Amino acid sequence: MYRTHTCGELRVTQVNEMVTLAGWVQTVRKFGAITFVDLRDRYGITQLLFGEELNTVLDSNPLGREFVLQVQGKVQERSNKNTHIPTGEIELNVVSFAILNKSAVPPFTIQDDTDGGDDLRMKYRFLDLRRNAVKKNLELRYAVNRSARNYLHENGFMDIETPFLIKSTPEGARDFVVPSRMNAGQFYALPQSPQTFKQLLMVSGYDRYYQIVKCFRDEDLRADRQPEFTQIDCEMAFVEQEDILNMFEGLVKQIFKDVKNINYADQVERMTWEDAMWQFGNDKPDIRFGMQLANLKSAFLKGGKIQANGELINGAGFGVFDNAETVLAIAAPGCAEYTRKQTDELTEWVKRPQIGMQGLVYIKCNADGTYKSSVDKFYAEEKLKAIADAAGAKVGDLVLILAGREERTRKAISDLRLEMGKRLGMRKEDVFKLLWVMDFPLFEYAEEDNRWVARHHPFTSPKPDHIDIMINNNPLIENADKYLEHPYSNIKANAYDMVLNGNEIGGGSIRIYQRPLQEKMFAALGMTEEEALHKFGFLLGAFEYGAPPHGGIAFGFDRLCSILGGSESIRDFIAFPKNNSGRDVMLDAPSAIDEKQFDELQIKLNLK
Amino acid sequence: MYRTHTCGELRVTQVNEMVTLAGWVQTVRKFGAITFVDLRDRYGITQLLFGEELNTVLDSNPLGREFVLQVQGKVQERSNKNTHIPTGEIELNVVSFAILNKSAVPPFTIQDDTDGGDDLRMKYRFLDLRRNAVKKNLELRYAVNRSARNYLHENGFMDIETPFLIKSTPEGARDFVVPSRMNAGQFYALPQSPQTFKQLLMVSGYDRYYQIVKCFRDEDLRADRQPEFTQIDCEMAFVEQEDILNMFEGLVKQIFKDVKNINYADQVERMTWEDAMWQFGNDKPDIRFGMQLANLKSAFLKGGKIQANGELINGAGFGVFDNAETVLAIAAPGCAEYTRKQTDELTEWVKRPQIGMQGLVYIKCNADGTYKSSVDKFYAEEKLKAIADAAGAKVGDLVLILAGREERTRKAISDLRLEMGKRLGMRKEDVFKLLWVMDFPLFEYAEEDNRWVARHHPFTSPKPDHIDIMINNNPLIENADKYLEHPYSNIKANAYDMVLNGNEIGGGSIRIYQRPLQEKMFAALGMTEEEALHKFGFLLGAFEYGAPPHGGIAFGFDRLCSILGGSESIRDFIAFPKNNSGRDVMLDAPSAIDEKQFDELQIKLNLK
Repeated sequence: MYRTHTCGELRVTQVNEMVTLAGWVQTVRKFGAITFVDLRDRYGITQLLFGEELNTVLDSNPLGREFVLQVQGKVQERSNKNTHIPTGEIELNVVSFAILNKSAVPPFTIQDDTDGGDDLRMKYRFLDLRRNAVKKNLELRYAVNRSARNYLHENGFMDIETPFLIKSTPEGARDFVVPSRMNAGQFYALPQSPQTFKQLLMVSGYDRYYQIVKCFRDEDLRADRQPEFTQIDCEMAFVEQEDILNMFEGLVKQIFKDVKNINYADQVERMTWEDAMWQFGNDKPDIRFGMQLANLKSAFLKGGKIQANGELINGAGFGVFDNAETVLAIAAPGCAEYTRKQTDELTEWVKRPQIGMQGLVYIKCNADGTYKSSVDKFYAEEKLKAIADAAGAKVGDLVLILAGREERTRKAISDLRLEMGKRLGMRKEDVFKLLWVMDFPLFEYAEEDNRWVARHHPFTSPKPDHIDIMINNNPLIENADKYLEHPYSNIKANAYDMVLNGNEIGGGSIRIYQRPLQEKMFAALGMTEEEALHKFGFLLGAFEYGAPPHGGIAFGFDRLCSILGGSESIRDFIAFPKNNSGRDVMLDAPSAIDEKQFDELQIKLNLK
Repeated sequence: MYRTHTCGELRVTQVNEMVTLAGWVQTVRKFGAITFVDLRDRYGITQLLFGEELNTVLDSNPLGREFVLQVQGKVQERSNKNTHIPTGEIELNVVSFAILNKSAVPPFTIQDDTDGGDDLRMKYRFLDLRRNAVKKNLELRYAVNRSARNYLHENGFMDIETPFLIKSTPEGARDFVVPSRMNAGQFYALPQSPQTFKQLLMVSGYDRYYQIVKCFRDEDLRADRQPEFTQIDCEMAFVEQEDILNMFEGLVKQIFKDVKNINYADQVERMTWEDAMWQFGNDKPDIRFGMQLANLKSAFLKGGKIQANGELINGAGFGVFDNAETVLAIAAPGCAEYTRKQTDELTEWVKRPQIGMQGLVYIKCNADGTYKSSVDKFYAEEKLKAIADAAGAKVGDLVLILAGREERTRKAISDLRLEMGKRLGMRKEDVFKLLWVMDFPLFEYAEEDNRWVARHHPFTSPKPDHIDIMINNNPLIENADKYLEHPYSNIKANAYDMVLNGNEIGGGSIRIYQRPLQEKMFAALGMTEEEALHKFGFLLGAFEYGAPPHGGIAFGFDRLCSILGGSESIRDFIAFPKNNSGRDVMLDAPSAIDEKQFDELQIKLNLK
């Protein structure tokens, strides 16, 4: 061993002990005839003192930043203590030292507030990983990993590895494929998730399965997506939805306790997907604050019906509202005093391409009881008050109203609500609010093919009450314009998402476990019998031999870690992430391969 | 929850409780007006009693094997107890039941001694996994996983995930590659191991890393190889070889304790590679028994010299020995009484193609002090005694001698030793003997290219004393016939294998951490500077910025589990293994992919 102690370990109780440390040179400070060096390792920083004699040696062997150093010396109490670091009361009076390895000058500083840009830090990721800020993230990731494993172990779950070289069954996302040399012309696929395998394990009787496992999706990368990502993947047999919700809110609470020392004692709230869409405009609401939506007019169905027909706003001669499919409002608390400049800025904000609205209507609920609006000429004050009341506004609030096509407007008002919540300090980083969103639609309508697609995945069961609707109706959509009237559009799934502070951290469902229902599902998604058998014959086959009722969940491990770490970016929590083009710039991968490899795999390029 | 208890849980203390169970029908036994059903789940089997009334219901809803059943009933003490199972003192008097799912008649019996053949069980792996024999293996695997993680955690190791989509750097084994759609014409590779990443993590200061991780090698599959396999992958910084040996024999001892309840108190033995080859004929000796080799004549170097020149056997007119490159002997204890039939059978055994010898010479060390041999006409009894003495034979032993080309003969005598050990009951399944084999050659000679290849991998450091030999000599082999005289052939690696009962379960090394030495290594392996930079530029670059001394080890997790489970086959310890052609016969993978996939990936087939 090159050391007797780590650089984070020594305290005044060890004064006068002879010790050996090894680590990296963080800083070198020369004061006349003596030199102070901060030596860093994974565990901390210890101050080294090179006295007069060694100082001469240092002169001919100068230390640079990031040199790897081994030192022997005596622990002594510092005269000038540093209360900011755990080793700040001592220093090491160096007796001898060895430079284990030199370092070129690093391309950026190894500090919390580094001077390195994103690209440089990615290229030299091995240096970026030395920074405390990144190290803390990976430590948190490991702590979450450990906590999850312990909880699942104590609850009888077994870690069972599922294969990585599987069969390509593109359905939803695109597969990464792997040419097989031994079976020329054929390909493996990398798993998008171990979904079908964990279901097979349930059929096999392993009634509590988990895995922390890499998954792969070949998608065009939006910001903060990775082609390979990690899931905490779980499945249980002989359970109903309630059992799964209880088990896995327990998991997340345990992680809070172990990793953040937060005692999450509250009941985890639950909300139907319809309520989430109706009240918050999206399916993963941040419920750290209110500011719910008022639906002044809507094309969106709730309980299978349109419940806001616009009677409050229609017919006043304001074409924007009259002609809109949807009009939605929120009441920003205490913002009635916003200046013209501020409301203009908000208007610009919603007109940005990312939001894409034509404009913003506001109503100020003034302290003196009057109402002032950007649409005063269409709506009398009484009407403005009625609208403001409908939006739940109180005196001093600012009502913000958006109008337009349903989907875009709902997304825009949801984004505006989050933005206002942020500006008003209502999205506190140290507050964590969990939420189950439930009763998702089982199907989504795919316009391009005029057919149904699975909102979650093809293995999700309908709610028990809705199984008959699915079985007794033909999935065919005869009139594309009226797809909303097709019975399938109202089938709800036995599915649930776990949402943390406005982020989906996990999702799952109770699965189909009867072959006929699974076949019906494949048919509903437009698969022929032959296709279904070719792709999922093994699963249909398994359901013939005593499949138990089962369900599960998968957590996005990268995302969960980033939220717990208070970061927007999952990349900060992955040791070796890829960039937005799916490249590892450090490795320079992907890259060309040899002729010999093409030859052995019996494939060739076919570049357009 | 579909149950209040599991099928392995109920005892007499629960008599008279009303409980609900769910599981699979193992057996149905009808006795007149009552029916006994064994209900099975992951935890055990509970006997169900269906009384007269329910029996009538059963008549119209007959239960079949592997039906999924939910039952409510009262626990009662059995009159006829079964002491073989933990629940054998009770049974459940069923009050009501529901068939949760039916089952077709399974293609083989779900029992320890199943009637299903290998192919059938692989196709229906989800049923095979129900068998207790397979379940025990996966449970053991999870126990090993858990034990390893706990030990490594307690010793300060961090689980850090490394990427799966990396760069193809074929060196040694063949990579599986993954075409990149977003970077058309380029490919990722799947990692053969996280070797370079764990070294980068050491450069980054994460001084104790581990991962239980899938690795991939596209090799022609020998029996019991899998294209994807799992490693316990570990690395440490600021350590010397001794630290690693101590840390990881600790790991294996902990696994013995946790998984097998074996207190492995002995010091783990160590042996140089040369001694292993000299005394046991291979580099992973089974040291549960002796029967070491006698080297009567050898071309194999020990300590850089040939130490057995054949003076004991040469010149007696026996051409087989005279002309052989190598003559090796073992003494099988107590086998002097072997009949002619038995020695003939052994001769046939060594002549099988798998062994490939021309014949077998034996010397019987008879109880009466005489020596009897198959080569009596060439060697006088005195000579036979001298040879037997050299082989370490005692009265009553049978000396077995093989002669031929060095490599093949050494392998053959090693196989013969193992075979005799087995026949003589010296390889006891419940005895575990660990061994470190050390000081491997750094290089192997590759005849086809007349160059050196890395025996372990290109990142392994030479022994400290041998670094100078490597640096100060040109790797070029000028005279292929005399490669053994090249200084490189005597360079030993700072590498070590952990061997358990004759199986390599782990291997590792102290790594090179200086750029110039690493460059020299790449050059020694025949890489141009350009190639080295293209393939491993990131690692060479990292070595510029303060790389610490480091080393590590990787355990073959599948193999370790199979040995601990007393099985020859790693496949039995993998939930969803592939067959010898790399196929998953359950999934029917690999398989053809769609035109659209080819199109998007911009590749096409080029079948020969």
